[in-house]
Amino acid sequence: MVEIRKPIQVAEAVERVMKHVHKLQTEVLPLEDTYGRVLAEPIVAKHDVPPFDRSPYDGFAIRAEDSTGASGDIRKAFRVIGEIGAGHVADRPIESGESFRIMTGALIPEQADAVVMLEQTVENDDGFTLRKSFEAGENISRQGEDAKQGEVLIEAGTVIHPGTIALLATFGYAEVRVAKRPIAGVLSTGTELLDVADELEPGKIRNSNGPMIRAQLKRMGITYTSYGMMEDDLDACTEIVEKALQETDLLITTGGVSVGDYDYLPVIYERLGAEVLFNKVAMRPGSVTTVAVLGDKLLFGLSGNPSACFTGFELFARPAIYSMMGCSAPYMPRIQAVLGEDFKKANPFTRFVRASWSMTNEGIVATPAGFNKSSAVSSIARGNCIIVLPSGTRGFEKGMVVDVLLLGTEQGVERWEL
Amino acid sequence: MVEIRKPIQVAEAVERVMKHVHKLQTEVLPLEDTYGRVLAEPIVAKHDVPPFDRSPYDGFAIRAEDSTGASGDIRKAFRVIGEIGAGHVADRPIESGESFRIMTGALIPEQADAVVMLEQTVENDDGFTLRKSFEAGENISRQGEDAKQGEVLIEAGTVIHPGTIALLATFGYAEVRVAKRPIAGVLSTGTELLDVADELEPGKIRNSNGPMIRAQLKRMGITYTSYGMMEDDLDACTEIVEKALQETDLLITTGGVSVGDYDYLPVIYERLGAEVLFNKVAMRPGSVTTVAVLGDKLLFGLSGNPSACFTGFELFARPAIYSMMGCSAPYMPRIQAVLGEDFKKANPFTRFVRASWSMTNEGIVATPAGFNKSSAVSSIARGNCIIVLPSGTRGFEKGMVVDVLLLGTEQGVERWEL
Repeated sequence: MVEIRKPIQVAEAVERVMKHVHKLQTEVLPLEDTYGRVLAEPIVAKHDVPPFDRSPYDGFAIRAEDSTGASGDIRKAFRVIGEIGAGHVADRPIESGESFRIMTGALIPEQADAVVMLEQTVENDDGFTLRKSFEAGENISRQGEDAKQGEVLIEAGTVIHPGTIALLATFGYAEVRVAKRPIAGVLSTGTELLDVADELEPGKIRNSNGPMIRAQLKRMGITYTSYGMMEDDLDACTEIVEKALQETDLLITTGGVSVGDYDYLPVIYERLGAEVLFNKVAMRPGSVTTVAVLGDKLLFGLSGNPSACFTGFELFARPAIYSMMGCSAPYMPRIQAVLGEDFKKANPFTRFVRASWSMTNEGIVATPAGFNKSSAVSSIARGNCIIVLPSGTRGFEKGMVVDVLLLGTEQGVERWEL
Repeated sequence: MVEIRKPIQVAEAVERVMKHVHKLQTEVLPLEDTYGRVLAEPIVAKHDVPPFDRSPYDGFAIRAEDSTGASGDIRKAFRVIGEIGAGHVADRPIESGESFRIMTGALIPEQADAVVMLEQTVENDDGFTLRKSFEAGENISRQGEDAKQGEVLIEAGTVIHPGTIALLATFGYAEVRVAKRPIAGVLSTGTELLDVADELEPGKIRNSNGPMIRAQLKRMGITYTSYGMMEDDLDACTEIVEKALQETDLLITTGGVSVGDYDYLPVIYERLGAEVLFNKVAMRPGSVTTVAVLGDKLLFGLSGNPSACFTGFELFARPAIYSMMGCSAPYMPRIQAVLGEDFKKANPFTRFVRASWSMTNEGIVATPAGFNKSSAVSSIARGNCIIVLPSGTRGFEKGMVVDVLLLGTEQGVERWEL
């Protein structure tokens, strides 16, 4: 008899996985090595930004009151007593009628309270004249206008991108506390699998899932140990899974999760005493996607069908891995788009369609990336997003508004909403 | 007198840069190392996918004609003569009334032309019976249904992502011809700059642009040589720029491009005989952004103001670098979004506002990421996109539809449209 599995909804499956995530420890890294890591401490403004009143332009620093009453007819004259380059400091305060030539970014000298841009002056022998009056504070970048000392600017749990690094550098975070990265194990199973360099043989195909999963991990900056390919041999597979679990923080397998005679992963989970969180999800492709947990380690049993494997990784492994690192926005961002062509196949399960989105005069349009069976591989290569079509008895028509998950973005979202 | 520079439009500036891009050579890499690289050859289907008719399910392979006339009352019986696991091949064709038990992905045996799913059968001692008839081709994944031999599936000039790698693996591309990556030089100029590890001093700030630019390069997978920080010393700066140009494929400097007394980059370009493509762009921030070309090397003179520096990199350096690698979609993707709050400051120049987008019930909303002067650094850290506000005499109101450029996405677009 065939085992009858009870499918659960995608949102429920995601929730079960996320509930079993164990957070990794943290480590301290040089700033230069933190791109893509998850902040384990908030960024707190260690001082005001800017740290002092400064000039936003090249110009002259004056006392605004000295310009009062200036006009085209009544010019006000200023004597230039020196120059302040960026990084330099005036040697004395200015007095009435005096000014410093001042460069962009330089500290405003004492008693000056406005900056006159070069093009607003008429130069003369010992200085310049003005034909308009200035207000106190005019053309001054105020200390603290960008950030105030003590302010929490970025929360822990944020993925570090170039802008984050600029902010960390500003406050002198030469070293940064970040989450450790998990080491993922990757194992492809299936007697039908050939290595990439192998010649094709009747009945066999090359292993595309292994290299794909490793690239999906690389895209997230995650290191991995590859356990290669295993034929469908129960004892040998069990042994390698046990070994992998000792050496890695999570294990991703491809293939062997269906109910066929050679689908050994369910048996292996049982042998190891792993708790199966689900083995059937109400989704296409990838309904056989199985996730189990053993101790604090998650075992992702992805389908051997490439499109199903790809989708299973992005839906379940990706957010779990980000969450292991304490990331507060671990899910793929969702947008809405106009469906670019009919998709007539109705399905009792939620369908995830590899697709390509682009901006058009009709707004964002997402179009299925060709052949879309779970075994498809060409559509994964062509796609840059996943269209999510809810389960139901009707197909979908061109022009309908659909949900789309973006692939390969730095940004994440906090909640799974589909 | 202050030098008066003539601003050019952003689109024109982008075009001038892109016209001066010199393509790099190509190299052959192991598949495993190609993530993020640009394909220098198209992916051509070296064989059909699937390479043979195969079973999409676990079931029984039969001759459809043997099931003709089957119904609840008239059951058709089949004898099971063996089993075909994935990766295995049947030892002989099937004859009338025979069947093979067959696993997902296994090659359909000769003379079989349909697959019966396990749950559609009633098993008996030497086989099973059917209560419905099957058509020829039913439940068979046809050879070539995903891709046909000789088909060009992915064009050269595409950035390699995990799906691309799956496809390359499928066709046995153990080695892949990709574009070489440029080596970028990064040099920060400004006497006001302290190192990240330094204590603050009056009038000085820490160098945030250098680490930020290096992270922007890292995000693109580009390696770099850092030439550190230089004080505003013309001869020393000239020497280091010359050295950098010998050692790298392009040079990115920050600071020193304005018209101030210590803005030496214009003088250095002149000394070296570099052709300045523009030194004033009708944009905020970053109007002083300067790009020059010497031989086949581009010199990006970015503003020393962090927000201007960041934006200048993404607008000009990023597409140029992708284009050096032959990438056909080098520009940041653009979407449209609803402006999340008023932005009242009108400007005669196009304004690029660091912002954060998210999906809401009102659609995609993009909201400025706080303090937005060109010197701002906190907004770069908070932002995940850039709102583009066209030049004009009016401000913009919450709820208006605006263009948004997405940051940190794998995907690019072919045309600069703003």
